[in-house]
Amino acid sequence: MKIIIHIFFILSLVSSISFASVQDFCVADPKGPQSPSGYSCKNPDQVTENDFAFSGLAKSGNTSNLIKAAVTPAFAPAFAGTNGLGVSMARLDLAGGGVIPLHTHPGASEVLVVIQGTICAGFISSANKVYLKTLQRGDSMVFPQGLLHFQLNSGKGPALAFVAFGSSSPGLQILPFALFANDLPSELVEATTFLSDEQVRKLKGVLGGTD
Amino acid sequence: MKIIIHIFFILSLVSSISFASVQDFCVADPKGPQSPSGYSCKNPDQVTENDFAFSGLAKSGNTSNLIKAAVTPAFAPAFAGTNGLGVSMARLDLAGGGVIPLHTHPGASEVLVVIQGTICAGFISSANKVYLKTLQRGDSMVFPQGLLHFQLNSGKGPALAFVAFGSSSPGLQILPFALFANDLPSELVEATTFLSDEQVRKLKGVLGGTD
Amino acid sequence: MKIIIHIFFILSLVSSISFASVQDFCVADPKGPQSPSGYSCKNPDQVTENDFAFSGLAKSGNTSNLIKAAVTPAFAPAFAGTNGLGVSMARLDLAGGGVIPLHTHPGASEVLVVIQGTICAGFISSANKVYLKTLQRGDSMVFPQGLLHFQLNSGKGPALAFVAFGSSSPGLQILPFALFANDLPSELVEATTFLSDEQVRKLKGVLGGTD
Amino acid sequence: MKIIIHIFFILSLVSSISFASVQDFCVADPKGPQSPSGYSCKNPDQVTENDFAFSGLAKSGNTSNLIKAAVTPAFAPAFAGTNGLGVSMARLDLAGGGVIPLHTHPGASEVLVVIQGTICAGFISSANKVYLKTLQRGDSMVFPQGLLHFQLNSGKGPALAFVAFGSSSPGLQILPFALFANDLPSELVEATTFLSDEQVRKLKGVLGGTD
Amino acid sequence: MKIIIHIFFILSLVSSISFASVQDFCVADPKGPQSPSGYSCKNPDQVTENDFAFSGLAKSGNTSNLIKAAVTPAFAPAFAGTNGLGVSMARLDLAGGGVIPLHTHPGASEVLVVIQGTICAGFISSANKVYLKTLQRGDSMVFPQGLLHFQLNSGKGPALAFVAFGSSSPGLQILPFALFANDLPSELVEATTFLSDEQVRKLKGVLGGTD
Amino acid sequence: MKIIIHIFFILSLVSSISFASVQDFCVADPKGPQSPSGYSCKNPDQVTENDFAFSGLAKSGNTSNLIKAAVTPAFAPAFAGTNGLGVSMARLDLAGGGVIPLHTHPGASEVLVVIQGTICAGFISSANKVYLKTLQRGDSMVFPQGLLHFQLNSGKGPALAFVAFGSSSPGLQILPFALFANDLPSELVEATTFLSDEQVRKLKGVLGGTD
Repeated sequence: MKIIIHIFFILSLVSSISFASVQDFCVADPKGPQSPSGYSCKNPDQVTENDFAFSGLAKSGNTSNLIKAAVTPAFAPAFAGTNGLGVSMARLDLAGGGVIPLHTHPGASEVLVVIQGTICAGFISSANKVYLKTLQRGDSMVFPQGLLHFQLNSGKGPALAFVAFGSSSPGLQILPFALFANDLPSELVEATTFLSDEQVRKLKGVLGGTD
Repeated sequence: MKIIIHIFFILSLVSSISFASVQDFCVADPKGPQSPSGYSCKNPDQVTENDFAFSGLAKSGNTSNLIKAAVTPAFAPAFAGTNGLGVSMARLDLAGGGVIPLHTHPGASEVLVVIQGTICAGFISSANKVYLKTLQRGDSMVFPQGLLHFQLNSGKGPALAFVAFGSSSPGLQILPFALFANDLPSELVEATTFLSDEQVRKLKGVLGGTD
Repeated sequence: MKIIIHIFFILSLVSSISFASVQDFCVADPKGPQSPSGYSCKNPDQVTENDFAFSGLAKSGNTSNLIKAAVTPAFAPAFAGTNGLGVSMARLDLAGGGVIPLHTHPGASEVLVVIQGTICAGFISSANKVYLKTLQRGDSMVFPQGLLHFQLNSGKGPALAFVAFGSSSPGLQILPFALFANDLPSELVEATTFLSDEQVRKLKGVLGGTD
Repeated sequence: MKIIIHIFFILSLVSSISFASVQDFCVADPKGPQSPSGYSCKNPDQVTENDFAFSGLAKSGNTSNLIKAAVTPAFAPAFAGTNGLGVSMARLDLAGGGVIPLHTHPGASEVLVVIQGTICAGFISSANKVYLKTLQRGDSMVFPQGLLHFQLNSGKGPALAFVAFGSSSPGLQILPFALFANDLPSELVEATTFLSDEQVRKLKGVLGGTD
Repeated sequence: MKIIIHIFFILSLVSSISFASVQDFCVADPKGPQSPSGYSCKNPDQVTENDFAFSGLAKSGNTSNLIKAAVTPAFAPAFAGTNGLGVSMARLDLAGGGVIPLHTHPGASEVLVVIQGTICAGFISSANKVYLKTLQRGDSMVFPQGLLHFQLNSGKGPALAFVAFGSSSPGLQILPFALFANDLPSELVEATTFLSDEQVRKLKGVLGGTD
Repeated sequence: MKIIIHIFFILSLVSSISFASVQDFCVADPKGPQSPSGYSCKNPDQVTENDFAFSGLAKSGNTSNLIKAAVTPAFAPAFAGTNGLGVSMARLDLAGGGVIPLHTHPGASEVLVVIQGTICAGFISSANKVYLKTLQRGDSMVFPQGLLHFQLNSGKGPALAFVAFGSSSPGLQILPFALFANDLPSELVEATTFLSDEQVRKLKGVLGGTD
């Protein structure tokens, strides 16, 4: 009898104070339309714990490349649960001599923490001032939104870092690729950077840019 | 003649300074895709005054339940016109001895105003400090976003309050339900709250939680 | 002995996971400098429960005036605890025949709920469309940010409403006062509204405007 | 041989540090659903340089109308690339004696710069204070969000200005049109503005209002 | 001669396109007044690279306590450079059997990445649904803003994780401390949680709460 | 007699519905502390119409420099009234052959409108795609926040443009200056851009960088 009353109470309670629709989160549905605020939301009934977890940061990125480094992002839509929540992460692997070239994140500031090795990192402000630090294991550094910055393995062995972003879509613009790895005409690169024609053509060759 | 000129002027005026598409509001269309910023917008041509009005707060909530209280929300999509406008309301009915248990709104701060009766309300800060007030008719109190708070009828008769939220989707997480009215395993509840197994199992029984 | 260990554990616990400084709230300190985000924060050590409560909405506003109505705000800094929390309220008293003239809130959308009486309310969109409703006790209506709207007692007795804003500083610009109760030259009022000189001068006289 | 290695490196580099999906921009797709944050995003693969350019501001607006003025907007969706980017522009043409009547932008603040002629501009604050300036070629003025303001050609020849908005959907509510060019009943206009019935009916006639 | 011309050009260049004052960042000055947007900014002339770096995450937190766990924050003002930049981090150390009890961050969502060990983590939504995952080294999980969540060492040895927040002031409210480690009267705890008097008094004793 | 009553009514009206303190605007007080949201607000009683106007855009910038171009900003605090209002402008003067080198605005998107001459403008996306347009008088173009872009006089005579930003502090980072006009060590420039030592040293010489 008491149990029946409890069930009655609970049911009436649920109907009294549950909110029919809430937006605690908006798991990315990459097939729906995007908006300025991010991806469409997956149907909440189909959301599972797996949408909030991501295993892509577990494996070292492949550093057998020109920069001896790799960036592995944990962003929407791959990490679907971060969509619209204003935070995401990425993994940086730097082999010996590896470097993440000068780059910006147009959409977020970044905090880096060193897990292994030694990293020389820096950024340049709008006032054209340079802020440089050599970071050991456990050290962290913040890079303000939209400013040019870099990370360079300045130790002997490989280095590993995790970085946090204040957006689920921070973006990434890598300077030498922006300059030399697309079809931006050489003469425009030269006129807008003061670099020599020889330098521009050489790096276009290395990085795959066309003219 | 003068009238014809007026019409001509007005028509040319309209074509000169009307803006073809504006976004003063975005009435919720619950059938469209959702985004992190809220529900899709109903076609503006089909929006009427009824989308901006809501009668759901007029009736007392049913307080014949365990907590002798009811929360009646006026949020999107039920109150479709609030979608994306950064404000919403709810109605609190507290019968004698009624209580809105400890809860948080993850998405908004709240202001409460007492319409009838006496309400003891309080919140706990991140610094673990308690702010308690006994509120009479006409008194108001603010509860900062995301902090645990409660409202309790501390008078003799029924109490009524209206609350304002700084979001059209403030969310609502009621503590005893979050702990005891779902399938969160008892051992995890116990490990993460220090509550005894006996206490947890008893309240799971009362509130309908499974193990 | 056990107690001593507990105390030791608790102290070490506090030093391990308390956060030295948090910003759950920022109670307005009207004597400090203001910023675009609001008032300076009162020293957290001096914040009490009274900063989060406000009794100013308890009393009817004085409606013995030209509009037979009164707006009583519960904003920062009077309601200090709302500063920066993105929500506030106000009380509307409308005696028989009372009206809150056409006005806008530049900084927030508004939701109104009728507590007593009958209120005819409406707003005008950027697309120049009118949305009108007659609201009874318990009915609510939303007015999108920055749009002209009004509330008018259309019942027989007095009317009372509470309104919620999605900002602690919504602002208030009352149209007839903006036009006729300051030193905006009559010729500019006329040129920018198409009103007649006679009309403008008459209302400047009524509302205290100078030329 | 060296070239092949380069290509190998570049490919592996691209797979290591390109981000599969980014949201640098969200070009408006007016056929998709809208959200509170703006228009749906066009498929990035179909975005071209033309989505980021707009020629609609090149031509003078037609000032052969009642106000001898024209506002030409460069907003989303016409200027599709601005969608969600928090900035847009418009062009103001004022023939001799032309005026942009008192108006508000509910969704953004505005900065105006005079390109040609002399413009008398002003706004009215929530505190009911008037800020007036006569602006010459090259002078600029800022109008805070949601406040009534106007621009009036106070020189001899035509005037031209460009205005910037801090939103891609600032909205525009022109006061005399909001009052007199729709179906807002005359008695409500009168009750909420203190204007005379004669004045209201006359301007409804001029501007096309009904009722 | 050529050098002199260069210097002349550079100086005139600097005066032409440098911006006298910018706000790329706002390093926290804990002695200045706070605002709803964060701490006051340190004088930019006194900002050095050390303001953007933080070594506090390098050392393990002390886990010799009741929860066998420690949270080490990297927030403003300790990590001064993060102030206002919308991102921060923290370090979680969990000894064998350690647990971060149920808690919320009122001001930000969180992404966690496991560096060492095995962590069982979960959160509860506003819809009262539980999302649980067991995370191994390199796995990450996102916890939406303001929702109750926990982390528990479910492996054999110690566990280490770093967490990212989408705010420089995420806040932290730990549930058992909010309930049992302050002066919230036992009867109010009981009435608002359904816990027994015995349970509440016992945990108040353990955690240092007074009545 | 009637006048006296009016005055009485008006006074009581003012006390009933004026809001004691509002934040329509926050004119920059450069002597007060700054916050993440901008400059401190000038005392409202000392604000005049001159705080909302700015004449600095009226004069051509000095283009007798290396880039044959000048950027004249209309930002806070020089244009004090824009502080915190989310919009600002700047003037671009490009003599024949003039160029605004590749640069970013970390804090805002930009819309440009050509007033005189012909400008070739372009930006590069995070996906490394180039968007180029040649703009004639009256043409406008939008540059999304934080992305590298440039403007180049591609006509015969001088060119003039005005640009709008969606922030009162957009910031400006000019690429060749960030690389070559400060004390960022040459070896770091080279390692993070792939430029040759010869190229870096040469441009450091031209632009005033030290090593």
